[in-house]
Amino acid sequence: MSNFDYDLFVIGGGSGGVRSGRLAASLGKKVGIAEEYRFGGTCVIRGCVPKKLFVYASQYHEHFEDAAGFGWTVGESRFDWKTLIAAKDKEIDRLEGLYRKGLENAGAEILETRAELVGPNSVRLTKSGKVVTAEKIIVAVGGAPNPHDALPGHELCISSNEAFHLPELPGSIVIAGGGYIAVEFANIFHGLGVETTLIYRGAEILSRFDHDLRRGLHEAMEQKGIRIILHDHFVSVAKTADGRLAAETKSNGTLVADQVMLALGRDPYTKGLGLEAAGVTTNERGAIIVDQYSRTNVPSIFALGDVTDRVQLTPVAIHEAMCFIETEYKNNPTSPDHDLIATAVFSQPEIGTVGLSEEAAAKKFEEIEVYRAQFRPMKATLSGRAEKTVMKLIVNAADRKVVGAHILGHDAGEMAQLLGITLKAGCTKDDFDRTMAVHPTAAEELVTMYNPSYRVRNGERV
Amino acid sequence: MSNFDYDLFVIGGGSGGVRSGRLAASLGKKVGIAEEYRFGGTCVIRGCVPKKLFVYASQYHEHFEDAAGFGWTVGESRFDWKTLIAAKDKEIDRLEGLYRKGLENAGAEILETRAELVGPNSVRLTKSGKVVTAEKIIVAVGGAPNPHDALPGHELCISSNEAFHLPELPGSIVIAGGGYIAVEFANIFHGLGVETTLIYRGAEILSRFDHDLRRGLHEAMEQKGIRIILHDHFVSVAKTADGRLAAETKSNGTLVADQVMLALGRDPYTKGLGLEAAGVTTNERGAIIVDQYSRTNVPSIFALGDVTDRVQLTPVAIHEAMCFIETEYKNNPTSPDHDLIATAVFSQPEIGTVGLSEEAAAKKFEEIEVYRAQFRPMKATLSGRAEKTVMKLIVNAADRKVVGAHILGHDAGEMAQLLGITLKAGCTKDDFDRTMAVHPTAAEELVTMYNPSYRVRNGERV
Repeated sequence: MSNFDYDLFVIGGGSGGVRSGRLAASLGKKVGIAEEYRFGGTCVIRGCVPKKLFVYASQYHEHFEDAAGFGWTVGESRFDWKTLIAAKDKEIDRLEGLYRKGLENAGAEILETRAELVGPNSVRLTKSGKVVTAEKIIVAVGGAPNPHDALPGHELCISSNEAFHLPELPGSIVIAGGGYIAVEFANIFHGLGVETTLIYRGAEILSRFDHDLRRGLHEAMEQKGIRIILHDHFVSVAKTADGRLAAETKSNGTLVADQVMLALGRDPYTKGLGLEAAGVTTNERGAIIVDQYSRTNVPSIFALGDVTDRVQLTPVAIHEAMCFIETEYKNNPTSPDHDLIATAVFSQPEIGTVGLSEEAAAKKFEEIEVYRAQFRPMKATLSGRAEKTVMKLIVNAADRKVVGAHILGHDAGEMAQLLGITLKAGCTKDDFDRTMAVHPTAAEELVTMYNPSYRVRNGERV
Repeated sequence: MSNFDYDLFVIGGGSGGVRSGRLAASLGKKVGIAEEYRFGGTCVIRGCVPKKLFVYASQYHEHFEDAAGFGWTVGESRFDWKTLIAAKDKEIDRLEGLYRKGLENAGAEILETRAELVGPNSVRLTKSGKVVTAEKIIVAVGGAPNPHDALPGHELCISSNEAFHLPELPGSIVIAGGGYIAVEFANIFHGLGVETTLIYRGAEILSRFDHDLRRGLHEAMEQKGIRIILHDHFVSVAKTADGRLAAETKSNGTLVADQVMLALGRDPYTKGLGLEAAGVTTNERGAIIVDQYSRTNVPSIFALGDVTDRVQLTPVAIHEAMCFIETEYKNNPTSPDHDLIATAVFSQPEIGTVGLSEEAAAKKFEEIEVYRAQFRPMKATLSGRAEKTVMKLIVNAADRKVVGAHILGHDAGEMAQLLGITLKAGCTKDDFDRTMAVHPTAAEELVTMYNPSYRVRNGERV
C-alpha cells in the first residue's frame, strides 16, 4: 500500500468505470469509485438497456396486426406508458443493484458523490468537500446529450435522458437528428402510437453506414408512417398558446408537436471536472486525449469509455477497462483493439453491421465484389406486412476476404455479433460458400450468394 | 444430343431434383423431371416451410401474454385453424409456382406423373404408361414418414403429412417420437392451444444433440405445459366409443386424445420405384447407396437428397445437386461436403447447433474446454416469462479450435447459420475472444465467455 488513500480511484460508475474498479478491487487493490447519479452508467440507466426494453414494447402492435394473417383474431389493445416506465424502472433498479453488489463483493468502496480532479493524484468529493488521494485515477465519466445551446428554445426540448422518464406519452413528437439514437427513438415512439417526425440536416439518416441500409431503413420507416425530413434543421423552438411546441425549420415551415427531442450527438461529460487543475489535456470536443493504453498526458491519470470519444459503445468501454487492468495490474501491456467492431441499430427493422460499407471499401480497395440480396422475410408472407430484408457482403477481390457485412432486418444485431467473429478472424468469401445453409432462416442468404451482384473497380461499378 | 429422349431425367421434384434439373436445363441439356405429387418436395409442400409458418402462428399467444409486462392490455384472442391452413396453402401454392416457373424458364420439361425405373436408362411414366429413355437419371424421390406398420391401429394415426391438412384443430394430441419433427409439432400444437403429450422410447428427446440443449428444451417444454413421457412407447392405438383415440402405452397406461401423431423417423421413398429392375443397390433401410459423387452402382443412375439417407436436410440435397452439375456437366468433379453442417430445431425455445456435442467432443479429443452460459433473455425481464437461454462452446484444448457451438433460445437458428461459418473456417476460441461484443444482444454471450466453465480430460470432467 502506497501513501495514497487509494490505489485506484475511479470517477464514474458506468460500464468502463465499474469494470475497472471491480477488477482492480478483486485483485486486492484499494479502490474507491465515485458516481454522482446512478451506477450502471448511460448503458444501464438511460441508454442501451432501457432503450431495448422500449423497442420490445413498441413492437407489440405489429405482432397484434401480424397475428391476423396466421389465423388469430385479437381484441382491442391499449398501451399504458406509465406501466412500461414503472416496469422499466424496476428492472433498471435491479440491474443497478447488481452493479453495486459486484463492486461491493470485490471490495471497492462506493462513493455516492460527484468527484472532481484537483491534481494528478487528488480528487475532491463534492458532496463532503473532502479531498482524497490515489496512486492512479481513472476518469470514466462518459458523455451526455449535446444540448444544442445555440438553438433558441432548446431548453424546451427533451433529450434521450428525459425520454426515459416522460410523465406521459406525447401524442406527437419531432426528433432532430439522424444518428442511431434519433432513429431508434423515432421507431420506438411511432411503435407506441405517437405521431412521429424525424428531421435531419444531412442527405440521409445514419451517415457512414452502408447506403443500402440507410436507404432501406429510411423507406421502411416512411412506410410505417414516420415522417422523415432531410436537408433541414430547427431555427427555433417555442411554446404555443395551447402548451405544445412549435419548431420552426429552415425549409419546411413550422412543425408543431407535444414534444421535441434533440438527438444531435453526445459530448464528453468533462465540464467542471477539474481536468485543467490536474493538467489533463482534452481535444476541441472536450474529450480526454489518451494513448494506446488509455493513459492521459498525466502519468497517474487514465481515461476510458465515452469520455475519450474513441468509440462510444458499452463493450468498448468494458474492453478498455479490461486492457487497463492487464496493463497496469497484471504486467501485461494490452492496447484496446478498436478494429472491426460490429454494431447494431435497434431500429425497426434492425440494422446489424460490421466492417466497411460498400463506399468505404470501394475507396480502400482496387476491386471489390458486392453480394446483395433483398427479400421478403418468411413471416411477412402470411402477415402481409410490407417489409424487406437486405443483406450485403463486401469482399476484397484481391484476397477474397469479407471486409464488410451489412444486414437490415429482423435479428440483424444478433447476426452482426457472429459475423463480427468471421471478419475478425479474416474469413474469406470461400469460407462462407463452403458453409451449408440452415433452412429456413434469413441468415442462410449470407452463405448462398454464390455470385457477386456487381463489382466496383477503381471506384466504378462494373 | 444422344440417342436418348433426354440427356437427364429427374425422378422427384423436391429440393435436390428441381435444383439439378433446373441447372442442367439452363446449361442446354434436355431435361425431363417427373413428380407424382407437387413440385417443391417435402421442404416446401409439407416440411420446412409450412412447419415454420405454423411455428410463427403458434408463437402469438405468448406475444399476447408477454405484452402485458410492457404496458399493453390485449383484448381476448381467438385462433382459427382453417384460416391458418388456407393462408399456408396459398403461400405453398405460390412457392410451388415459383419452382415450376424456374424449371420452365430453364427449359426443363415438367411431367406430372409418377415415374419408375425400368432399366439403367429408361423410366416408365406411370400415368401414361409410356417409357422414356435418358442418358443420365437422377433419383431424388426423397423420403416419407415411417408408418410404423407393426403398431396395431397405426392406420388411425396421422403423420406430419396429415398434420398440415387436418380439417380441424384437435383439442388434444399425443405425439410419438423424440426427434425434431415430434418436438417441433409438440410445440406448434401446444402453442395453438392443443393439450399436447409427447411420448418417446429413449432416455431424452433429441438424441445426439448436446445434453444441455436436450435437457434445457425438455424442461422448457414441460414448463409451458407439454407433457413428456420418456422410456415408453405405444403398444396399440384404437378408436374409443366417442370417436377419440386411445393409445395404450407399455408403462403409462392409456393416453386418450383427439389425434395421435407418429413421428418415428422418415424412410427413403423407394418402394416400387423399380430400383431392382434397373439394378440399383439399396441398403437395409431402402436407401440408395451412392459414392462420393452421388453415383449409384449403375453408371447412368445417380441419387441425391433424402433417398440416399446421408443427411436429411434441404440445403444438403441442393448442395448435392450442385455438386452433381459440377461433376457431370462442368468437368469439375466435386464431392458434397457433409462435414460441420449447422442445423436448427424450430422448437420453442429454438435450438441452433453446429459441430460436436460436448459428449462427442469429449470422446474425440484428449481435452476439451466447455464454455457455458445460461441466462434469462432480456425480453423476459419485463414479460416475466420463465425462460432460459443456454449457450455453449466446445473447444479442443490442443489447438483452441471451436469444435461445437450450441444454443437454446430465441433466434438460435439464425445464430447457428453464422456460427457454422466460423467452425467451417476453423476459427479458434481466440478469434471469438478478440471480437467486440454487440450490446445488448444474446449472441454477445458467445464472445464474452473468457474462461472455461469446466474442462473434460480423457472423458473426465475436471
